[in-house]
Amino acid sequence: MTGATGPAFTDAAGRVRPVDAAVVQEAIARHDRLTKPPGSLGRVEVAGVRLAAIAGAVPPPDPAPAVVTVFAADHGVHAAGVTPWPQEVTAQMVANFLRGGAAINVIARQVGASVRVVDVGVATALEGEHPQLLRRPIALGTRDLSVEPAMDLEQARAALDVGVEVATHVVAGGARCLLTGDMGIGNTTASAAVIAACTGRDAGAVTGRGAGADDTMLERKREVVHQATARVAPDANGVEILREVGGFEIGAIAGYIVGGAAARVPVIVDGVIALAALLIAVDLVPDALDYVIAGHRSTEPGATAALAHLGLEPVLDLDLRLGEGTGAALALPVVRAAAAVLGEMATFDDAQVTASEVIGPHHD
Amino acid sequence: MTGATGPAFTDAAGRVRPVDAAVVQEAIARHDRLTKPPGSLGRVEVAGVRLAAIAGAVPPPDPAPAVVTVFAADHGVHAAGVTPWPQEVTAQMVANFLRGGAAINVIARQVGASVRVVDVGVATALEGEHPQLLRRPIALGTRDLSVEPAMDLEQARAALDVGVEVATHVVAGGARCLLTGDMGIGNTTASAAVIAACTGRDAGAVTGRGAGADDTMLERKREVVHQATARVAPDANGVEILREVGGFEIGAIAGYIVGGAAARVPVIVDGVIALAALLIAVDLVPDALDYVIAGHRSTEPGATAALAHLGLEPVLDLDLRLGEGTGAALALPVVRAAAAVLGEMATFDDAQVTASEVIGPHHD
Repeated sequence: MTGATGPAFTDAAGRVRPVDAAVVQEAIARHDRLTKPPGSLGRVEVAGVRLAAIAGAVPPPDPAPAVVTVFAADHGVHAAGVTPWPQEVTAQMVANFLRGGAAINVIARQVGASVRVVDVGVATALEGEHPQLLRRPIALGTRDLSVEPAMDLEQARAALDVGVEVATHVVAGGARCLLTGDMGIGNTTASAAVIAACTGRDAGAVTGRGAGADDTMLERKREVVHQATARVAPDANGVEILREVGGFEIGAIAGYIVGGAAARVPVIVDGVIALAALLIAVDLVPDALDYVIAGHRSTEPGATAALAHLGLEPVLDLDLRLGEGTGAALALPVVRAAAAVLGEMATFDDAQVTASEVIGPHHD
Repeated sequence: MTGATGPAFTDAAGRVRPVDAAVVQEAIARHDRLTKPPGSLGRVEVAGVRLAAIAGAVPPPDPAPAVVTVFAADHGVHAAGVTPWPQEVTAQMVANFLRGGAAINVIARQVGASVRVVDVGVATALEGEHPQLLRRPIALGTRDLSVEPAMDLEQARAALDVGVEVATHVVAGGARCLLTGDMGIGNTTASAAVIAACTGRDAGAVTGRGAGADDTMLERKREVVHQATARVAPDANGVEILREVGGFEIGAIAGYIVGGAAARVPVIVDGVIALAALLIAVDLVPDALDYVIAGHRSTEPGATAALAHLGLEPVLDLDLRLGEGTGAALALPVVRAAAAVLGEMATFDDAQVTASEVIGPHHD
């Protein structure tokens, strides 16, 4: 039972239910009665069907208010020279989030989402208290996954539990859409290793430049991912993979996804870090995938590998590689529009638009 | 001088200025000082640079309020059997727009844009007056482009002039971002013909199913586009192409784009109809392209051909094929976020984030 989960995660996992296929069919049928050529809203219709399935209702409610939770943590693998950024940037960026000056703050304001920050293991001391900051540090960063397990099993369980607790808390506060965010210098290395372990793909195929690795650094990063992944047993479950090669924010995001799914709230996932977390979440709770919308396709190769493995088509493809939840936040207006289309558009009958030659006679 | 333009268009064309390359460089340099890895916001940064260039200012102003103008007209080529939809649907959909029940109404509300409708040649009588409806009909639909020129030169000039006048009026009313919209049963046939004529591509490569042509209808549509395009002289200009194979809404949108460019306001173009119009606009006023942002990549093959010909990368790729301005409206939040990033994000110096190892020492 080394791969067992903690109490909050275990409880949430037990509350995740698969969505109802009948609601999916009802949403598809409603789309075909709306005043537009059938299927002509493409992925907006796909997102609308997903929202209906999650809510168990056609039309689905507006997925708002929306909250972006940025889980921040440091990574011992920083010592292996896998990123050009100094480790103190994690804490400096947390301060930037709390002052409202980072990309996620600007974009969240623009799309009408609020931002919370959770310290799940930042190595550098954070100064002062802040109403948007929740402190749940598991340790002052992980250990160096290039030479040893990134964390012990208790820490992995704790990271998953923190994520569930945050999701539950945010939903209790009124959120009706959860967006994932992350901050952690070195976390694309851990994410690549998690993705390699979960998908069985080669380290070279899933490891990218992250926030700016040059050719030499990328080669080193690939070697680190290759070596670390080799330590993961072929039958390791999500908890064990998280322990060996993950990160505290990756575990917390996995818990946050499962917590959102347990609450039947849609979760828009961001880029490669969130997708690594999603792979862990789905390994442990397969039905959690029903509650997820992929916000965008990061340029990191691991993101595309994870999306393909999970069978997800992302909403946006904007060549983003920033993290923080920026891609999830930019997708939010499209996701909200998808709900509004099902809820507010006139049907052919309502609008007395002649469509019988195209879609056949129909009855509301 | 058969291809000369009317007074409003000629005046606007004379006021379109190329954007300032120095402002482009300034915007790029500012992006690199913001608290994110350089280039990590991908196409959001590209859109921000474009907005700065259009405004001649770094940061650019918020492109709001935004107005979607839906130009509606009918097409004589409907008689050739190129669409399964009856012609009266154009007028029925105009009524739907004015009641707020169409996709563009729902999506525009969601993203904070307002909707105007301009009748530039709807064949079926429209009932009553409405504050959002402007009536500038050029004729009760075009003639059948499968057998004769779609319009005469005076009508082509009038369509271009109406578009300029609407853009000027909307900007005078306070709009700081123009979005193109269209409605017209049969208009993907006219658009395919315009795109074939402007890009030199084969009819087969640029003609799609539009709002639902089946295989037989698609074959007929391709043949119509092929035959009609063959009548266009190789050295025909935009006015002459519009006359031979265009549509009133296509001409009006071309004028609207040039009117927006003359007013130095960004124009977000929608799908295949808008791109056909943009090809005409750029043929007549090449610098107008500097003021355009492509909202999305429609599934219509002509859209991809036009985007490639113009060297445009669209913001979204959502498998849309609806028109009405829906793809432009869905892109608006990303475009507004692009302006906000340049205007509101902290720099590395502001936020005291250590970046000198990554981006080198810098001075604000």
